[in-house]
Amino acid sequence: MQLYSYWRSTSSYRIRIALALKRLEYEYISVNLNNGEQHDPAYRKIHSDGQVPSLVDGETIIHQTAGIVEYLEEVYPDPSLFPENAAGRARVRGFILACVAEMQGRTGRRVRDYLLERYGMDDLKEWYGHWAVRNLELLEKLVAGHPDTGKFFHGDQPGAADCFLVPALYNLRLRETNLDQAPTLVRIEQNCLTHPAFKAAAPENQIDVAPDTRY
Amino acid sequence: MQLYSYWRSTSSYRIRIALALKRLEYEYISVNLNNGEQHDPAYRKIHSDGQVPSLVDGETIIHQTAGIVEYLEEVYPDPSLFPENAAGRARVRGFILACVAEMQGRTGRRVRDYLLERYGMDDLKEWYGHWAVRNLELLEKLVAGHPDTGKFFHGDQPGAADCFLVPALYNLRLRETNLDQAPTLVRIEQNCLTHPAFKAAAPENQIDVAPDTRY
Repeated sequence: MQLYSYWRSTSSYRIRIALALKRLEYEYISVNLNNGEQHDPAYRKIHSDGQVPSLVDGETIIHQTAGIVEYLEEVYPDPSLFPENAAGRARVRGFILACVAEMQGRTGRRVRDYLLERYGMDDLKEWYGHWAVRNLELLEKLVAGHPDTGKFFHGDQPGAADCFLVPALYNLRLRETNLDQAPTLVRIEQNCLTHPAFKAAAPENQIDVAPDTRY
Repeated sequence: MQLYSYWRSTSSYRIRIALALKRLEYEYISVNLNNGEQHDPAYRKIHSDGQVPSLVDGETIIHQTAGIVEYLEEVYPDPSLFPENAAGRARVRGFILACVAEMQGRTGRRVRDYLLERYGMDDLKEWYGHWAVRNLELLEKLVAGHPDTGKFFHGDQPGAADCFLVPALYNLRLRETNLDQAPTLVRIEQNCLTHPAFKAAAPENQIDVAPDTRY
């Protein structure tokens, strides 16, 4: 397998964690978003829209992080990253999709670039702060006091939701969001960060780490 | 089962199609977004963040449309809405997640409300138009010329991706987007619209249809 990844990309980080939790070996192919390498014709053959990450497994190219995690679970089921019952899996997917649609969809790279160009840095920061607070509140509600929340998002073993939770908080910390209102998310994050799979996947431990000061 | 739905909601429309394709009976509970009913305390018990749709199946409440479709497929597998092979399922999910994260995440109700209040109608329309063109191009690339594209998104039977494709184009048409650049999507949409499940799920055929002139 090959993973097209960028060290600081929140989306790439999710898949690095999932691959590490499943103990799958892969070739790390860096796509330097800071240099615009995602727009190179060579990468456009892997992803026509130039997004990272892309996972290549033999003949199959898989896009979209929530879809990549489902694919890995189907093709490499052991160890499983999803709960055994349908209601539990629905809970995990509900969290993953909130990260994908509401957090990433509204504050991802392309949206930030559009806002910066159209309205400037002050408005971009205002936009990010608005959705960061709102989404943090939403995500915290999905874990705080829920009977299935354990040491990790669902029970006491790390799973698919944790692959999205940790990068979401990384993204928020990078942009100096106050996380005081999300104590349960932070507790789970801290449990994750001591786990070897999460350490291996961490942005600062990737081969392509380099200065990147973009907001 | 109960579906909390609003007739004009793109997200609700997706799940109405999926339920109809699976021939599942359900109680339709209207949440009038035009009157702000999603913020009522009663609905907040179903969805803490006040989003529609929510699907209630016995004890289980399921949120996020991409997660609801996965749940329905797992618990009510016949007829299946997903391809038989993992690569095909990854393709379907790639399309669904592009609709969810890139289209809905950037142009959904809450984002439109924020832009309208912060920047006004002209800027809201500019924003919508920017992402509409971009996402239409992205989605068209996922179907045009792909060997698995048939009468429908994947082959010649309607499936999970079509549950997202038709509402996506409904949303774009509602805001007067030019669809000329997406002939394959429009062809698939037209095939869907003659199918009884899609007719039953159509916004104009819901019990709560009523004037709603919001952008």
